[in-house]
Amino acid sequence: MRHPRLAFATLAFTLAMHGAIAATPAKDPPKYKSAQEILDAAPPSAWRDLDPQNTLYLDLASGRVVIELAPQFAPKHVANIRALAHAHYFDGLAIIRSQDNFVVQWGDPDSGEKNEKPIAPAQAKLPAEFTALAKALNFHPLPDSDGYAKQVGFVDGFPAARDPSDGQAWLTHCYGVLGAGRGTEADSSNGSEIYVVTGQSPRQLDRNITTVGRVVQGIELLSVLPRGTGPLGFYEKPEQRVPIKAIRLAADVPESERVKLQLIRTDTPTWDAVVEARRNRRDEWYKRPAGHIDLCNVPIAARATPTPAATPAH
Amino acid sequence: MRHPRLAFATLAFTLAMHGAIAATPAKDPPKYKSAQEILDAAPPSAWRDLDPQNTLYLDLASGRVVIELAPQFAPKHVANIRALAHAHYFDGLAIIRSQDNFVVQWGDPDSGEKNEKPIAPAQAKLPAEFTALAKALNFHPLPDSDGYAKQVGFVDGFPAARDPSDGQAWLTHCYGVLGAGRGTEADSSNGSEIYVVTGQSPRQLDRNITTVGRVVQGIELLSVLPRGTGPLGFYEKPEQRVPIKAIRLAADVPESERVKLQLIRTDTPTWDAVVEARRNRRDEWYKRPAGHIDLCNVPIAARATPTPAATPAH
Repeated sequence: MRHPRLAFATLAFTLAMHGAIAATPAKDPPKYKSAQEILDAAPPSAWRDLDPQNTLYLDLASGRVVIELAPQFAPKHVANIRALAHAHYFDGLAIIRSQDNFVVQWGDPDSGEKNEKPIAPAQAKLPAEFTALAKALNFHPLPDSDGYAKQVGFVDGFPAARDPSDGQAWLTHCYGVLGAGRGTEADSSNGSEIYVVTGQSPRQLDRNITTVGRVVQGIELLSVLPRGTGPLGFYEKPEQRVPIKAIRLAADVPESERVKLQLIRTDTPTWDAVVEARRNRRDEWYKRPAGHIDLCNVPIAARATPTPAATPAH
Repeated sequence: MRHPRLAFATLAFTLAMHGAIAATPAKDPPKYKSAQEILDAAPPSAWRDLDPQNTLYLDLASGRVVIELAPQFAPKHVANIRALAHAHYFDGLAIIRSQDNFVVQWGDPDSGEKNEKPIAPAQAKLPAEFTALAKALNFHPLPDSDGYAKQVGFVDGFPAARDPSDGQAWLTHCYGVLGAGRGTEADSSNGSEIYVVTGQSPRQLDRNITTVGRVVQGIELLSVLPRGTGPLGFYEKPEQRVPIKAIRLAADVPESERVKLQLIRTDTPTWDAVVEARRNRRDEWYKRPAGHIDLCNVPIAARATPTPAATPAH
């Protein structure tokens, strides 16, 4: 349905961006494999199931956003968010902000009013959890340099950074990462107001606010929300807000209603190969492999959990 | 209308993100000024008017997107895009793709069909313009490190990089940057199909494709477009495409109908101060200034051109 040249152009251009084009055979092996080809050939052990205790469902009229919580970075905030979800605290609240190239944020629009929703039995006040002890984490480093941190990598599927000089690590502000909004006081967040990064990674927020998880499916339901026209992307009129039908911990939902999703492990040879295939693309389209990949440019693959019959024998 | 703590929390959190909060008085001067405060106090000479010959208006039903073309990086492609706009080539064509965290793309949906729109009098074939001679450009460097290039900075308001070893420079793939779609052949773009970066900066495309300009106003009309559900974000059904009412060169539009817009100059002491205020935020909210800024994290300010009466005396 397209001009042959442009059809090819578009297809090649776009497929190449996903690394789905096989390389021109090189003089010598190994032949370049795209990230997708590596993922498709990965053994089942390269994938992991989401833990229902760490999985949150944000249900909007447009569909479900699946979030993985990161208790290894923010145990107290995650416990509070679990308690809030269990108490159905978020149900009926709303997305109140969408700022272009930055964040989407939800919370209680009536906060401060007489009809404000009580946060109990969750804690109203928590200590700041900007960083965590690095040695307690399964930190799989990325060899690439980073301007904001001495070392970057992945911890259990989360983009992360660490500083050997103080032994601290933190979940970095990449696309899809969730944080707990706070005031000027470091300890003024409690997880009742949450933002999600929907723009260029705002890494200047790292170590300044508590990050609590990452969207693993459905981010496009948040990233397309109309930008608020008030200061900083807040919706100016109540009818512009996007109602939250429910936020539930997967463990609180009957198993039959859970999203069957697997995430790629980020501490395996498969993962290293996937990252390298994106760091240096050697397909027909790319003329100059980048030789570098930014921490926030590494997509962390998710897939529907294979049914037993559909699992290939490895 | 909010709980005092959360209202403050939200306001402080969000204002701080824009650096609009004055710092706690330090022991010694100079007092920290936010990027916005520096911009507000900048002399008129810190701003420049858009050149109508390098300004493109993309008119959608939702409004106007203002684009600045970059002939200093891609003279032949920009000349072709000017010719296409002058011939009303794009009018009635459509946005055909919106891929989450990546790009929005427009072109001729009937490309390859019998009713494909003729590209003449523009050129069907152009040489690749992936890079330009650095010494011919007004390159204002950023002192910050970059993983993808030896040096980064700004050229006439465009984010850019250069490589001293080969003397080449290029317009980098930051949020809002425009490129000319191509096939597997390096010289297969002509500016009739254009993508705009609407996600995390895909810097791996740098030096692999011809970049031609940047959206300077109205990017939010593109970034919220529903994501296409076809492979790579292409719209699967014709009715999902977003019609282009018109694309016009500002110079082809009566002066009274032009958008009066100024851009901050990126080669002045004001600019350096703005960047530093964002690199190291020292307001009440930030507990730890980043000490670094990524090239694609520097917002390039635009403002309505002040009317003579409204221009403060400097």
